[in-house]
Order: sequence, then structure tokens, then C-alpha cells
Amino acid sequence: MPNNAGTQAFTELVNNALEALLPPAQTSIVCEAMRYSVFNGGKRIRPVLTLEFCRLCGGKPETALAFACAVEMIHAYSLIHDDLPCMDNDDLRRGKPACHIRFGEANALLAGDALLTLAFETVFTAELAPAVVVKAGACLSAAAGWGGMIGGQMMDLLNEGKDIELSKLLETDAKKTGRLITAACVLGCTAANAEEEKVEAAAAFAASIGLAFQLVDDILDVTGSTVKLGKPAGSDTGNKKSTYIGALGIDAAKVKVFELTQQAKASLSVFGENTSFLFSLADSLAQREN
Amino acid sequence: MPNNAGTQAFTELVNNALEALLPPAQTSIVCEAMRYSVFNGGKRIRPVLTLEFCRLCGGKPETALAFACAVEMIHAYSLIHDDLPCMDNDDLRRGKPACHIRFGEANALLAGDALLTLAFETVFTAELAPAVVVKAGACLSAAAGWGGMIGGQMMDLLNEGKDIELSKLLETDAKKTGRLITAACVLGCTAANAEEEKVEAAAAFAASIGLAFQLVDDILDVTGSTVKLGKPAGSDTGNKKSTYIGALGIDAAKVKVFELTQQAKASLSVFGENTSFLFSLADSLAQREN
Repeated sequence: MPNNAGTQAFTELVNNALEALLPPAQTSIVCEAMRYSVFNGGKRIRPVLTLEFCRLCGGKPETALAFACAVEMIHAYSLIHDDLPCMDNDDLRRGKPACHIRFGEANALLAGDALLTLAFETVFTAELAPAVVVKAGACLSAAAGWGGMIGGQMMDLLNEGKDIELSKLLETDAKKTGRLITAACVLGCTAANAEEEKVEAAAAFAASIGLAFQLVDDILDVTGSTVKLGKPAGSDTGNKKSTYIGALGIDAAKVKVFELTQQAKASLSVFGENTSFLFSLADSLAQREN
Repeated sequence: MPNNAGTQAFTELVNNALEALLPPAQTSIVCEAMRYSVFNGGKRIRPVLTLEFCRLCGGKPETALAFACAVEMIHAYSLIHDDLPCMDNDDLRRGKPACHIRFGEANALLAGDALLTLAFETVFTAELAPAVVVKAGACLSAAAGWGGMIGGQMMDLLNEGKDIELSKLLETDAKKTGRLITAACVLGCTAANAEEEKVEAAAAFAASIGLAFQLVDDILDVTGSTVKLGKPAGSDTGNKKSTYIGALGIDAAKVKVFELTQQAKASLSVFGENTSFLFSLADSLAQREN
């Protein structure tokens, strides 16, 4: 993430809004688990994208805050369920015990369910025109559902231990990671009532950085350290997951990250000169070490 | 369920709509698991209530069909996740292998997630005025979330193996079962743009039949047979779950079911003479054997 005042201001907006939207930890152990997983040092890339695209489309960033938080809640729920023993069986998440390690499987399952539900409640109760809410919610639920993120998670499970061809890997990641990042960008435009041309530019940008993000994940899994990653390095190889490194080799993967980042920037031309924030975000995602 | 032409027509409407809303089984194993769990002989009590309250409030029942299906999807998801090994660990559901037995834990987890997500997508894409959609969605998501159904599931887990006082048991069931039944009734009114007085009557009806429903469940767990129930009789006692039978005794529980059914009927007075369908539904729920 670009370490500048703009990012910090957006991240703070998002964190304060999430603080207010999530139920108090003392309500119940499930509510505690929800907070634990949302406030565990996540980079807030998706909600920051939502706010920035809203700004780029001429809206006040705050207008898109409910949508931004909903996207982040869905991201957090997906990580909780992904880490469960019946899925990836990961004990660590961002250097801390995974939700089910800390709170037990049943509470982690329910915390994930509750975050997904709260995400949609947050959209339904957003203080925006009902037509805007409905449009955003339709986009977000389709992105998160069986044809989007969940479909990608399922393909990921099916791919496990197999030698998967590149096109299948691309489809998996476009669904598993790409769809929610795309929704994050598009929802910012929706909150600002943007014209279709800008929505399409946002989606193109998201597709490029989404894939670059996944490639960097795979590269770091090979080259990174457990301390920096907050999860065991080499865990994908250990889990016999197909990655781009296996399909492309590490050097070609790095070239691809560079190309995708350039593509992402190029797709923003419709927004004129106003895109330095997203340019540095794209760069920082490409160059990140965790 | 009252075995009459009205119920059959409503059930058919709901089944046809669910058929169209759910993704084709051949799309993926998760989609197959979604269908397996939705089309497993469920009684469709909740969606039928949605359609009937819409009719009672002067709307065409079809108007409420998307909301009715959303409620049923949330019900189906909650059963899939409830049956998982880390929750109730039930192998049987309505006499058939539970979703995770049939498709494995990971696919069952994802099928539940996908049904919950599709439920909200169904609300967001309902062909109704956006303001109606937003009102219904806010009600449904609050009913299903941490303060409603999920909160009740968590209390249920906490109560397990303990001697729970009656008030706690009532709160657990009001959340776990009552909130979604209430949302089912209220959403029917919402679809018909009903006045507040009717919404309140629907909620009061729902609270009474919801509790009666749970009492009958507990009674059948003691007196029923595994064949009729489709799950092992006595499983609650086996799981050391606190039930009303433990708190009240079986005779007092039966009296309570009768009283609640009378209360449910009384709360419908605002709808005039038009309530025979709901009267017989309340009776049939009280007298059911599975």
C-alpha cells in the first residue's frame, strides 16, 4: 500500500466505520471472533479501492464507506472459512492464530457466517438512494457467490494436488480473488453514480491488479520468509497447490506482474490526471513483501 | 402443513421459483450440494408464510416470491452448517445423508455460504421497488445475523450439556428459530406495502408459532420415532441439549403448544375473516408428527 497521507486517511475512515458497524466484542464469543478477524492487521486494499474510485468518479469518499466495509467483511469471512480444517487447514493468518485456532471451529464457522450476513446488512442499511443500494448489492452478492468467489474457492479445492493448466488457474483466480476486487472498485463508482465508461475502466483496472496480486502471492510463497508473510512460506507447495510459478517459472511470473501493473495503469486513462494514488497503489502491490 | 389446494399451489410456486433461482447442478459439486439441500423434502413453511401474508395484506402472492425463496435459502444454509461436525455433527437430515456426509465437509461449507449469498442476491435482484427491496433486505439480514439466528445458534452451542433455565431457552429459540420465521411473515407484508399494524400482527403470529414449533420438536424428540422424524429420536437428549421437556415436563409442554397456537390465531384478528389458511397452518404445525 502506498504509505502516504491519502491512504492513511482512507484506512482510518474504513477502520472507524468497521469499528462502529461490528457488534461489541463482549456481546458474545462469535462477536469477539468477528472483530478478531476483521482487526488483524489486514491491509484494507479492497475498501481503500472502493473509496478511491468513488472519489475519482466525483463522489465524496465517505459516500462509499458502507460499501467499502461490506467488501472488507466479505473478504474477512472468506479468510476465516478458507482457513478451516476442512478447507486449507491453515493455523496462521497474518502471523497470528487463525480464527478457528483462537476460538474453536464452531465459533469460527459462525463468525464467518455472521460477517457475510453483516456485510449485506451493511449494504441494505447504507444511507444512500435505494436504487444505488440495490445496484451495489446485486453486484457484490454476484461477485461473492457460487459464480464468483465461492466458485473460485471450489475450483481451488478441485485443483489441489493436480497439475493444472494455466487457463484453469487464471479462471480460478479471476473468480476467487478477482471478482471481489472488481466489486470493490465498481461499488465505489456505483456510490458516485458514475457513468458506464468509468465502471468499465474500474473493472479493467481491478482485473489486472487482481491477477498481479495473486502472482505476487505465489512468488512470495517461494521467495518470502515465514516471518514477513505471517504464514508458513512454501505452504502452497506443501499443500501441492498449483501456482503460476509452476506454470510459468518465477522469472516469467515477475515479468507478468510488471506487465499487468502497466495494463492496470493504462486502463485508468478515462480518469485523466487524477490517478496518482491508484498508480502508486498498483506499484506497491506489485512490490510488496507480504 | 394443511393439506389443501392453497398450500399446494403456494408450495409449487416456491419450488418452481427455487428451481429457477438455484444454479444448475452440473455447474459444480457445490451447486449440486446447494440443490440437494434445498430440494430435500423441506416443508416450505417459511416461504408459504411469506406468500400468505402478502396475500392477506392485499398483494398478489407472487409479488413476495423472491423474498420467500430468500428466506428458504437462508433456512437451508443454516441446516447445512448446523449439521457440520464442528456444530451438531448430525449425519442425517430429513431421513437422508446430511450435506457434508453426501458431498464432504468443504463442499457443504461452501454450499451453505453460497446459499446465504444467493439469498441476498435474490433479494437485491427482486423485481420490486428498490425501497421495498431495501426494507425487506434490512429485516432479513438482521434476522439472520449475529443478533438473530446466528446468535441463537451460538447460544445453543453454549447451552449444550448445561442445565439451562427456561428464560435462557426461550431467548435461544426466539433467536435461533423465531427470528427467521418472523422475517418470513414480515417480508410478505413488506412485499405488499402493508401498514405497520399488519406487520406487527404478522410478527406476533410468528413469535407464537415459532415457539410452538420448537416445543413440538422437543416433544417429538422424546415421543417420536426415528423413521417419522428422519433423524435419530432422542438425539437432543443424547446430545445433552436443554429442551423444554426438561424444563416443563411433557404434559405442560403440550398444554403450552395449545396455548401458543390459540395466541397465534388471536393475533391475526386485524386480518378479519380471511385467515382460515393460517389457522389450519398453525393447527397442523402443532399436530405434526415430524
